[in-house]
Amino acid sequence: MQDRRALLKMMALSPGLAPLIASAAQAQDTLSMESPGAMPVSGERPVMDMDAIPADWFGTEQVGILIYDQMTALDVIGPQHFLAGLMGATIHLVARTDAPVTSDSGLVLTPTATFDSCPRDLDVLLAGGGMTGALAAMRDDATLDFLADRGARAGWVGSVCTGSLLLGQAGLLRGYRATSHWLGRPMLDRFGAIEVDQRVVIDRNRATGAGVSAGLDLGLELVKRLRPLDCAQTVQLMAEYAPEPPLDAGTPDRAPAAVVANVRDWHVGFTDAVAEAARSARS
Amino acid sequence: MQDRRALLKMMALSPGLAPLIASAAQAQDTLSMESPGAMPVSGERPVMDMDAIPADWFGTEQVGILIYDQMTALDVIGPQHFLAGLMGATIHLVARTDAPVTSDSGLVLTPTATFDSCPRDLDVLLAGGGMTGALAAMRDDATLDFLADRGARAGWVGSVCTGSLLLGQAGLLRGYRATSHWLGRPMLDRFGAIEVDQRVVIDRNRATGAGVSAGLDLGLELVKRLRPLDCAQTVQLMAEYAPEPPLDAGTPDRAPAAVVANVRDWHVGFTDAVAEAARSARS
Repeated sequence: MQDRRALLKMMALSPGLAPLIASAAQAQDTLSMESPGAMPVSGERPVMDMDAIPADWFGTEQVGILIYDQMTALDVIGPQHFLAGLMGATIHLVARTDAPVTSDSGLVLTPTATFDSCPRDLDVLLAGGGMTGALAAMRDDATLDFLADRGARAGWVGSVCTGSLLLGQAGLLRGYRATSHWLGRPMLDRFGAIEVDQRVVIDRNRATGAGVSAGLDLGLELVKRLRPLDCAQTVQLMAEYAPEPPLDAGTPDRAPAAVVANVRDWHVGFTDAVAEAARSARS
Repeated sequence: MQDRRALLKMMALSPGLAPLIASAAQAQDTLSMESPGAMPVSGERPVMDMDAIPADWFGTEQVGILIYDQMTALDVIGPQHFLAGLMGATIHLVARTDAPVTSDSGLVLTPTATFDSCPRDLDVLLAGGGMTGALAAMRDDATLDFLADRGARAGWVGSVCTGSLLLGQAGLLRGYRATSHWLGRPMLDRFGAIEVDQRVVIDRNRATGAGVSAGLDLGLELVKRLRPLDCAQTVQLMAEYAPEPPLDAGTPDRAPAAVVANVRDWHVGFTDAVAEAARSARS
């Protein structure tokens, strides 16, 4: 019962469930102040009462999330939060180099792996989007090489927002049904993909999401497919993911026509540049 | 017209709208390859055609977002994305020191300000939550001093998830209606707050959100209150914030009873520790 109680305390570590493993050693320090008899930590992982959490909630997935300068951080941090609920999995934030990258909203993210050090075989490969950042990535051979290589063997190949244009540029969406940010969705056919107007599109092992915030839906969808239902429900409940947007302008169909027209107008430069880049898309 | 066209290209920089200013110089470099005649950059900010974006979409807010070790990153990165749509505003990620902090899911975030260097007068002060991280912050005098000081003068005092327990500990919720992560909500009365079971609760200048993902709703709510309606709609549309959770277990009312019971059971240690910490809450 002492171990059971200690496990309960361990579970208090994180709303995401998985971080309890990643941070167990550190948490142990914290908890030991309150409960000197808490479970011992053995090596990297805590010795834990595996009976308390169903064994089939644990896995060993290798998840690779691409990050790059001027990307949209929420594209990948939404799904990263949910994927952190895959207990036992390892999540790699993968960049060209070890250097921190700066998002288009000024967030500085630190990679945990590079294109070279990232595991060769990934269970999940995920690319987020952006505007100038995504365009630059679409023109970067090292990035496309990485995506094409890992994507050829990955269990799931996913994207959020204009990340699907990046997958397309790497040749990973030819013949697949896919979605993207609504501004980029009409461009998908330039990469041989079949455009679908849906929040999350699953076609075989391709999982693409719509703009930015769709990453939360995509992330939870993957957890649902990779773990038992009650585990995915637990992850959703811990994130209290029962959204209530205070406005109803989240899609071109719902937003006022003038708002949609302005946004389209403002992004002519972006869509033109995507069209230009797509001419050298990989096959 | 050249300036107008260049502005349209500038607007292609980011789904968040605001980053176009932050990253204008960098983007200029990117864009200049395509359009050598694009607008010149003068000092920090680009010379831009202010006619294209309504003048009242711009502000000068100072936003301070508290970050700390073992916090839940999505708690603050959800709202940070939307608040980045406050064009002209400056967002500070504020920590105890300049050292990067590691979230409970392993994300390494780099602060842009410290408790000392953060502006004295903030238009928005925001605290995210977590489990062990939030508990440690609730026991840290420097963190509570910072919150109490900036919170006393801030235009808005906000929180996401168990961040409201942290505000409560700093004495900022006495007499206010507030919410929190559903696990922490029943503890709010220990800080003199009035518990409300609502996704986002606004009481005078206090804006508190429910668990983790409620930060997106809270962030958009603040944009709605700080900018004209069509600006907030544009920010929502750019984030394609029209969520469609693939499961319906986001609240204790909707999740299966067994899932809720397990999560409650697993977090007895957390709620006990919050109750203990609350004994020394500030008044």
